[in-house]
Amino acid sequence: MKLTSEQRLDDGVLERGFTLGEIPGILWTPGSASAPAPLILVGHPGGLQGMHPRLAARARHHAAEHGFAAATIELPGGGDRPRSAAAEQARADLRRAVEAGEPVDEIVDALVLPLVEKAVPEWQATLDALLALPEIGGPVGYEGGVISIGIRLAVVEPRISAAVLFAGTFVPGALFEEARRVTIPLQVLLQWDDERNDRQHALDLFDAFGSEEKTLHANLGGHTGVPSFEIDAAARFFARHLN
Amino acid sequence: MKLTSEQRLDDGVLERGFTLGEIPGILWTPGSASAPAPLILVGHPGGLQGMHPRLAARARHHAAEHGFAAATIELPGGGDRPRSAAAEQARADLRRAVEAGEPVDEIVDALVLPLVEKAVPEWQATLDALLALPEIGGPVGYEGGVISIGIRLAVVEPRISAAVLFAGTFVPGALFEEARRVTIPLQVLLQWDDERNDRQHALDLFDAFGSEEKTLHANLGGHTGVPSFEIDAAARFFARHLN
Repeated sequence: MKLTSEQRLDDGVLERGFTLGEIPGILWTPGSASAPAPLILVGHPGGLQGMHPRLAARARHHAAEHGFAAATIELPGGGDRPRSAAAEQARADLRRAVEAGEPVDEIVDALVLPLVEKAVPEWQATLDALLALPEIGGPVGYEGGVISIGIRLAVVEPRISAAVLFAGTFVPGALFEEARRVTIPLQVLLQWDDERNDRQHALDLFDAFGSEEKTLHANLGGHTGVPSFEIDAAARFFARHLN
Repeated sequence: MKLTSEQRLDDGVLERGFTLGEIPGILWTPGSASAPAPLILVGHPGGLQGMHPRLAARARHHAAEHGFAAATIELPGGGDRPRSAAAEQARADLRRAVEAGEPVDEIVDALVLPLVEKAVPEWQATLDALLALPEIGGPVGYEGGVISIGIRLAVVEPRISAAVLFAGTFVPGALFEEARRVTIPLQVLLQWDDERNDRQHALDLFDAFGSEEKTLHANLGGHTGVPSFEIDAAARFFARHLN
């Protein structure tokens, strides 16, 4: 891991850019900490630069208010990372199928499964590198989208102890089945009028998770309308499980 | 309103018993307050004595952690208040119909509509009396069940500015329609595996509420299994809307 930039923000939080091989990322750490901080991995749909304001708002809240470190990386095919022609094709196919009201299962598989296969080991390598820093001590939470990546990480990565997942995208059938094997505490966000996601599918997915502690937070509004109070609700969930 | 008992609890909260005419109630106020406190009306399914530990836990948290006053009254027909033969009959009919898998709409109407008609003016009279106390200033929130009472109060009582409602009991069709006229901010609790309530009916009710800000918190478990962290989630919701 190579640090590429560093700035101290007005709430005392330290924001550092880094690269892990070809993958760019951002790390936020609390201004003052007496012990190594728990870590929250912040997922997003790709395009780190465009997502930066929203990611930074979450991460700075977690760091400044709750003393958590937070980190994110660019998704495979996102931002300036090399595109996959197959993924671009699947994305176009999905848009067309949704507009036409056609079945999307095979397209969702073609779009999401390779992304999960590639992204999950990258998150794990990032985790290795971050946990090697003296200021970060674990335990670790995962927050955000892509929900299929969160599901796989929750199943295969024992260092992740709790997750806040955004049920905002199509989940392949294979990942839906994997959700039954998730056992860590979950808080699941659902936008009630999400124009990019089927409400019943999201409710079925919440039902499928194997976790004994799972909470659904459904809010009125569309895909990008998650209310800002859910940032603190997520932080309090992590405070219960990571502290 | 006549005060009937008073004790200072170990967190400094003052718990006072009162009667309003024939209706017994309890008022909790913060140990120290520099200004009149916002008020939370805490609803419950009846049987104040049996409900006391759970109600007191909520009220004391709200008072000690957030500086809210909280109050509850006995329901018509609850505790030592005179029973209604019709309500007792409807309750027995409902149990029988649910066990037999028969339609319950008419029985729910017979059970809940008279309760709402009687309880809502009692809550309003209680509100008049409480707001006359110098240590209570409003604004006012309503929290808990019976959800049909909460719906009617939210529609007819303009002094109530926000509500946390427990979708844990059958709602008559007429109240379901009234839910569309509710416009105050809502947080709705749903127990995902509630053996006394139909999940889809609760989701439809959440959908029906007319409020622009409404959040559903669904948790795993049965009717009485609402997790304790929802007490603080409710208090934080009220802190956003009553402060």
